[in-house]
Amino acid sequence: MRDMMSLTERPEVISLAGGLPDTSTFPPELYAKLMSKVAAEQTAKALQYGPTEGLAAVMDCIVEVMACEQTAVDPDEVMVTTGGQQVIDLVCKALIDPGDVIVAEAPTYPGAVPTFGAYQAEVLQIEMDSDGMPIDELEASLDRLAAQGRKPKLIYTIPNFQNPGGVTMSLPRRRRLVEVAREREILVLEDNPYGMLRYEGDPLPTLYSLDAQLAGRGGASDFVIYLGTFSKILSPGVRVGWAVAPPPVLEKLNLGKQGADLCSSPVTQLFVAAYFHSYDWRSYLERLRGLYHARRDAMLAALQQHFGSSAQWTRPQGGMFIWATLPDYIDTTDLLARALETEDVAFVPGRSAYVDGRGASSMRLNFAGVAEADIAEAVRRIGRVVSEQVGLFGTLTGAETGAAEPQEDRPEADAQPEAMADVLELPKRQREGRQRRSR
Amino acid sequence: MRDMMSLTERPEVISLAGGLPDTSTFPPELYAKLMSKVAAEQTAKALQYGPTEGLAAVMDCIVEVMACEQTAVDPDEVMVTTGGQQVIDLVCKALIDPGDVIVAEAPTYPGAVPTFGAYQAEVLQIEMDSDGMPIDELEASLDRLAAQGRKPKLIYTIPNFQNPGGVTMSLPRRRRLVEVAREREILVLEDNPYGMLRYEGDPLPTLYSLDAQLAGRGGASDFVIYLGTFSKILSPGVRVGWAVAPPPVLEKLNLGKQGADLCSSPVTQLFVAAYFHSYDWRSYLERLRGLYHARRDAMLAALQQHFGSSAQWTRPQGGMFIWATLPDYIDTTDLLARALETEDVAFVPGRSAYVDGRGASSMRLNFAGVAEADIAEAVRRIGRVVSEQVGLFGTLTGAETGAAEPQEDRPEADAQPEAMADVLELPKRQREGRQRRSR
Repeated sequence: MRDMMSLTERPEVISLAGGLPDTSTFPPELYAKLMSKVAAEQTAKALQYGPTEGLAAVMDCIVEVMACEQTAVDPDEVMVTTGGQQVIDLVCKALIDPGDVIVAEAPTYPGAVPTFGAYQAEVLQIEMDSDGMPIDELEASLDRLAAQGRKPKLIYTIPNFQNPGGVTMSLPRRRRLVEVAREREILVLEDNPYGMLRYEGDPLPTLYSLDAQLAGRGGASDFVIYLGTFSKILSPGVRVGWAVAPPPVLEKLNLGKQGADLCSSPVTQLFVAAYFHSYDWRSYLERLRGLYHARRDAMLAALQQHFGSSAQWTRPQGGMFIWATLPDYIDTTDLLARALETEDVAFVPGRSAYVDGRGASSMRLNFAGVAEADIAEAVRRIGRVVSEQVGLFGTLTGAETGAAEPQEDRPEADAQPEAMADVLELPKRQREGRQRRSR
Repeated sequence: MRDMMSLTERPEVISLAGGLPDTSTFPPELYAKLMSKVAAEQTAKALQYGPTEGLAAVMDCIVEVMACEQTAVDPDEVMVTTGGQQVIDLVCKALIDPGDVIVAEAPTYPGAVPTFGAYQAEVLQIEMDSDGMPIDELEASLDRLAAQGRKPKLIYTIPNFQNPGGVTMSLPRRRRLVEVAREREILVLEDNPYGMLRYEGDPLPTLYSLDAQLAGRGGASDFVIYLGTFSKILSPGVRVGWAVAPPPVLEKLNLGKQGADLCSSPVTQLFVAAYFHSYDWRSYLERLRGLYHARRDAMLAALQQHFGSSAQWTRPQGGMFIWATLPDYIDTTDLLARALETEDVAFVPGRSAYVDGRGASSMRLNFAGVAEADIAEAVRRIGRVVSEQVGLFGTLTGAETGAAEPQEDRPEADAQPEAMADVLELPKRQREGRQRRSR
């Protein structure tokens, strides 16, 4: 990921690699106005240390965002963090001893993989389908662990528009997941950076709110730690995220945060508070949603046009990422090197979303941070190196690859939906999506 | 420390507890101007993710500050962090496995103690005297460990105006420390937040620069990891610190930072860069030095006036903290509870600066963050609870305590300097300091 980030700085590269939202839409005059407001009212407070748990003014913003997620939270159960990433780190620091098991989705957030590794967790990844993590598979895995006398310390999930998979956990699975967590007394880390970035379909309740219903104690959850962030609805540069957690967990997170960075920046916390106070954050979010929706559609169209019939991809209802899978003879890590060298284009190779080397033929594509024209161009470029590889494979093996020819003339790249679905292990959504498109 | 922080929010409390500099001296109009400059020139960059290692514009500021510390550094060996605290955390994350030994000073920075604990390090504390950590004691400890087949992963030191001890490591000891580190191949973490806050005496070279001289490779050190921060020369609220480290260590710190918080805030990094670019940071620092120098003197005078002859304290040449030690029958944790309850005044109990319960009769007093009048009042209040305890002890035991009577009339509280020095284990500086004052 670090090499990815540094590559994005080469100006000629179009990068679909980063987890970057588009911050160019934020008005500079609003930035200046909000900072001047902070300066006029509380310069000394902004420049001073703040409380480890965060400033009260930001707590109010967090409660407001959570309410928009249909989730009631008590500010006493909230802790401000240095971005959402810090929640993952602090949760591991609080809970994980070397050798402890964390259950995650497959694929999972590439940025979580090294964090889990740093705490020497054993990560068990459950392959998703189009409804997210199959809870029966989860239960079977938990049973197998239990037979060995083991129990995970944590189930890590990104239920909405998963990073990198692009799929969303269905309501029945959400309900069942919190039941399983309660039955087996296992903590769930619900990573929800993109929940407010839905472009179609109805919002689904958070795991936190579902568990709180079952807990019945005034809206607070027993087993779900919620990770939220302002990164995707305002700015990642402010480095302000949050955790909502049961009090005993929150206490440990707070101790960990003291040791990690004492407090998150009051400069940026007060900026966030000023923004919420003097600007309609929902209208900016609406603008982002419109922008990203169009970009998602642009990427889906470009994939349809430029990727061969041998490729498959998810069709996310929101968020920032599409997960594309190529024939299994293509290694996307090698492909990235080639794509950067010959086409000045970048993506995240799929292997970084697994702990065990799987995902080698997949890639994560970010559609949110890049203009529509650049999306089309970037996908065209990636399509060229893919076609080159597919053609090369065909030449070498004599196999019929079905992807070296241009796709524009074919009505739908649905030659082998069943087989492709099996490769992807994302059958239902994929098929539905493709059927929808072919109507 | 967290409870301390929350107590400081009670408006009636005068707190000498926090590690807070004074940010009220920073002009709000300058804050507004700098932020407007960032807004005009680079809003989108400020609000976006930045590279994990930090923005190039801040590297330049860091190189400039390090040059003022007479230390040449290559930007390639620098990493921006979320405050200096994160350096301690990342160094532990990179180097420490459970049971590994860290050597630290006694007392040591209270904020490092829980971090070391979180990584399950075994902390060996070397009692300081007025010249800082005695290196012969360090070597003896290393020999004892070596006899057990063990070697520390890290020697942690705050050479300048130590937190909380207030003492400064002498030049011969600095030279010897880096020799020992090289001879035995042990990494040193040089924590130097206060180096630029010297109120008297000549600056001493950093351990980093001394090791770089011995390494002879163009200014870079082999065994010293340097921790710097803008917290005390500009603002802790920006949460921008840095590490300078040998490349193999830096690479590990960078990986750790990716997992911890991805990057430090570009909003505040660009603020720092704008500040250095358009304002003479040395003149603001000069102003802080004048302010803190006067406050240090005010605290020394107040201690002389209000603390009994049974108390001893250090006389720092810079920094922010005085370390005071009371008779050993007084427990400063209990004293703090009493001080808060009856006198609305706070300090850091000494025990938090040790891993093993030592320091129970000492306290850390911050003179930098509080106005002179409040310093005098706070020390007067603490003196009252101390006198109360001393008097109580005298009543209960019939002992002659020599501290319940007011001190104003006595020319110098030097009744038992040798004995007190033994209690403090800070003999030389203490005696010199007191002799200087009595001239």
